[in-house]
Amino acid sequence: MIIPGKYLLFLGDVADRLDAKTACGLVDWSRERCVGQWRLPSCGIDMGLEDMDFAQARAAGAETLVIGVTPFGGAIAPQWIAPIVAALGAGLNIASGMHVRLGSIPEIAAAARASGASLFDVRDPGRSFPVGSGRKRSGRRMLMVGTDCAVGKKYSALAIARDMKAHGMKATFRATGQTGILIAGEGVPIDAVVSDFVSGAAETLSPDNDRGHWDVIEGQGSLFHPAYAAVALGLLHGSQPDAIILCHAEGRTHVDGYPDFPLPGLAECIEANLGMARRINPAVRCAGISINCSALPAEARAGHLAAIADRFGLPCFDPVATGPAALIAHISATFD
Amino acid sequence: MIIPGKYLLFLGDVADRLDAKTACGLVDWSRERCVGQWRLPSCGIDMGLEDMDFAQARAAGAETLVIGVTPFGGAIAPQWIAPIVAALGAGLNIASGMHVRLGSIPEIAAAARASGASLFDVRDPGRSFPVGSGRKRSGRRMLMVGTDCAVGKKYSALAIARDMKAHGMKATFRATGQTGILIAGEGVPIDAVVSDFVSGAAETLSPDNDRGHWDVIEGQGSLFHPAYAAVALGLLHGSQPDAIILCHAEGRTHVDGYPDFPLPGLAECIEANLGMARRINPAVRCAGISINCSALPAEARAGHLAAIADRFGLPCFDPVATGPAALIAHISATFD
Repeated sequence: MIIPGKYLLFLGDVADRLDAKTACGLVDWSRERCVGQWRLPSCGIDMGLEDMDFAQARAAGAETLVIGVTPFGGAIAPQWIAPIVAALGAGLNIASGMHVRLGSIPEIAAAARASGASLFDVRDPGRSFPVGSGRKRSGRRMLMVGTDCAVGKKYSALAIARDMKAHGMKATFRATGQTGILIAGEGVPIDAVVSDFVSGAAETLSPDNDRGHWDVIEGQGSLFHPAYAAVALGLLHGSQPDAIILCHAEGRTHVDGYPDFPLPGLAECIEANLGMARRINPAVRCAGISINCSALPAEARAGHLAAIADRFGLPCFDPVATGPAALIAHISATFD
Repeated sequence: MIIPGKYLLFLGDVADRLDAKTACGLVDWSRERCVGQWRLPSCGIDMGLEDMDFAQARAAGAETLVIGVTPFGGAIAPQWIAPIVAALGAGLNIASGMHVRLGSIPEIAAAARASGASLFDVRDPGRSFPVGSGRKRSGRRMLMVGTDCAVGKKYSALAIARDMKAHGMKATFRATGQTGILIAGEGVPIDAVVSDFVSGAAETLSPDNDRGHWDVIEGQGSLFHPAYAAVALGLLHGSQPDAIILCHAEGRTHVDGYPDFPLPGLAECIEANLGMARRINPAVRCAGISINCSALPAEARAGHLAAIADRFGLPCFDPVATGPAALIAHISATFD
C-alpha cells in the first residue's frame, strides 16, 4: 500500500488533540508531507497548518486527504461524510485509519467510483497471518509498553529508532497502528487483526534479522486497559522483546475515558509486562522509562526524570523534550 | 443463525481426537442430533457413530454436514473440498467452525449455489461489537480459565451450567467457540473477533442479568499460550468474572503443539488469572479446579482430585468422571 503524494489533514470537529493522534503524528514526524489542514467550524484544535479548501489543497500539491482524527471506537462520524465526498469530487484520494472501511459507506464508495480516486484503509490488515509459533528469532527487539493508550509509545519508538540510526546502530521502526503506518509507509494495524492471529501478526512484523539489529516496535494499548489489554498482550508475546520500554504520560491518573479505572504504578506496570513477556523470552528486561512530561512546568521536567531514573536505576527520558540519548547509551553498554 | 435439523459429522482424515473437538463435543453433549459420521480412508478416529455416505445420511434424517474436526489454525484442507462438494450435491447443508469461510472456496460456493443448500460459518461473528467499557453488570459470572487449550474448559462449563440448573439455580451456558455454539445454538466465536473488540464482545455475551443468576462462560486459550493469550485475556477482562474455575488436563506437561513451552503450575496459573481479572472485578476469586483425569488409571483419580482439593482448599472435580457437585455446593455456600 503506497499512499500518493502530499497530504491534506482532515481534522473534522474534534475538540481535543488526544483525538487527533494521526494528525499530530504526521505533523511531528512527516511535516514535509503535510500541506494544510481542513476543519469543520466546531473543530477545537489547530495543527498550525494553513487552512485550505479542497481545491486550494490540490493546487498546493496535495494528493490525499488523510483522516487525521482517531475518535474512540474508530468510526466515521455522519457529519464527516459530506466533506469526504466533496474532497473526492475535487480529485483527492482518501486515507483513513478508522475500523470502518471507507468503501462500506455508500456515499463515499459512489463518489470514489465517480471521481476515479482511491480509498486507502490503513487499518485493514489486507492479508491473513499465521498463528503465533513462539519460535526464537534472530536479531534484537524492543517494544514500547504503556500505562495507558496515548502516552507516547509511538513517539518513543520513532525517536529511539531515529537516534539509534544516528548513532550508527542498525534499527528499524516497526509500526503497529494507523499513524505509525502512515509515517513509516508500512506496518501491521495490530488492533484490527482477528484475535486468534494477533501474536502471529506481531511475529510477522519483526522477522529474523541480523545480529545486533534492533526492531523498535510501536506499542498498543496497555495490559491494564479494560478494552485493549488483549491487543497489548498479543503484541507483547508476538514481539518477543529483548527489552521493553515503559511509557507513561505524567499527570494521567486514570485510563483515558475510563474514570473508574486508576492507572497502575510504574513498578506494577513494568512487573506485569515482564511477567508476561518472560513466557516467550526469559531474558527480557526493562531497559528504560519514557515519560511524556508535557503536563509538567518546563522547569520541573529534568528533576522529575532524574528522580524516576534514580528510583528504578534505569535511563528515563521524555521522547520529545530530552530525546532518548541516555537510553541508547544504556542499550549500547548492556546488550552485546 | 439456526442450523437445520440433525447432523452428519465430517471427520476428514484427522489422526487424533484432540483435533476433533467439535465432533467429540457434539457426541457428548448433543448425541441426539448426530445421526452418523463420514470419514476419509486415512482417518484415525472413530466417534462410535454409524459410518454413512451422504445419501444414507439424508435418508437417516441428516440435514447438515458439520465439519467436526478443528485442525490447528482453522483452515479447510484441500482434500476435504471434494467430499464437501459431494455432500452439497446430495442435498446437505454445511456447517463449519473454521476461520476460513466456506463461501470463500470457489468449488464449495458454486456447489451451494447449484444445490440451493446453506453454508453456515459458525466462526463468523456476523456482527460488530462495541469497545469494552469495564462497566459493572448485574448478575453473577463464572469463567473457565485453562493451563492450555483443549483441557476441558467447555465440558466443565457445560457440566456446571447443567448441574446448577438441576439444583434449582438460575444459570446459562455461554458459548465462546464453534463447538459450544453448535451445542448451545448461540454464542460468540470470541477468537474470530477483531482484537480491539474482544473485551467488548465478551461483555456483550454476558449482559446484565437477574441477581443470583450465573452466566457460566466457556473459556478460550490460556494466558500462557504463545499464540492465544490475547484471546484469553480479552475474554477474562470482558467476562468480568466473580469466580474463575481453573481447568487442566492431567498429564499434559507442555502447551499442546509447542514442545518448547512447559505448562505453568496450577497455583501460578490461578494467580496470573486472578491478577488480571481483579483489574475489572476486585472481588474475583478462584472457586474451584477442574481436572480432566482421563489420562490417569481409573483407580487413581479420586485420590488425585482429593489431593488437589486439600492443597488449594477448593473443590476439585473431573467434569466427566465426577461432575461438579462439590463445586456447586461450594458456590451455593459462599456466594449470596
